[in-house]
Amino acid sequence: MKTLADAFEHTLKDIYYAEKAILKAGPKAEKAVKTADLKKAISDHMAETKEQVKMLEGVFATIDVKPAGEKCDAIEGLIKECEGIIEDAQGEALEAAVIGALQAIEHYEIARYGTLREWANTLGNTEAADQLGRILDMEKAANNKLTGIAVSTING
Amino acid sequence: MKTLADAFEHTLKDIYYAEKAILKAGPKAEKAVKTADLKKAISDHMAETKEQVKMLEGVFATIDVKPAGEKCDAIEGLIKECEGIIEDAQGEALEAAVIGALQAIEHYEIARYGTLREWANTLGNTEAADQLGRILDMEKAANNKLTGIAVSTING
Repeated sequence: MKTLADAFEHTLKDIYYAEKAILKAGPKAEKAVKTADLKKAISDHMAETKEQVKMLEGVFATIDVKPAGEKCDAIEGLIKECEGIIEDAQGEALEAAVIGALQAIEHYEIARYGTLREWANTLGNTEAADQLGRILDMEKAANNKLTGIAVSTING
Repeated sequence: MKTLADAFEHTLKDIYYAEKAILKAGPKAEKAVKTADLKKAISDHMAETKEQVKMLEGVFATIDVKPAGEKCDAIEGLIKECEGIIEDAQGEALEAAVIGALQAIEHYEIARYGTLREWANTLGNTEAADQLGRILDMEKAANNKLTGIAVSTING
């Protein structure tokens, strides 16, 4: 990696890997939690994530690169944290801590899409910037939804 | 972990471990980057992180628990990602990608402190909530500072 275009391609492959890892890990979290709202939020976000994978494939097309993932250590760690909670926690601690871990994942994605969109703009790739901005808004909305569920769940 | 208080204690130990891991990893990032503003931002944030470790010790005191870290898989992954960039990238890609990785770390902390503050409020621990809110504001400011540097660096 030498140029900003290299960094963009590398980070795009990183987040593509991350979204696919989330798709694999999501059902385990959905199964572990009890709150109906939370189950639904996870299931809805899995459907959204599938859509985001396709949207990312569109971003790859703007730079003429074949869609491919590159192992992303950060998402591996974030998912491992969530799986650890599912193993170790029960009752209200499980519900609250899973929401917290999912929000940490959302924040990771918000950081990455914010960076990628900024870079796309700098590189003059407005098509990619628009698409990445749309995914960024989806992640922010998913995070806000989790905040709402956290507040109603832990205060309920 | 069964109760919200258990989840709070566990997550507090997690972020305490994370802040200490950041203190260990920071100097390597500071040394790797070239931009003076970025070097200074990392160095300033290391001083702030030392202060945050003490503030967290104050939060431990509010729940009568001895300050201790618990291995946090998420921060390990996030730091590994940053170290991978330092090894693999050069020139403008290095500067841009290190900023991106540091912002992912800030976002992780923002997620965790947001969750912890919410839980402290629910648990009626206003002293902890105030302290966690102060750290949250510091992390948000650090993230905004990095955004400013990113914009001036990659467009410069």
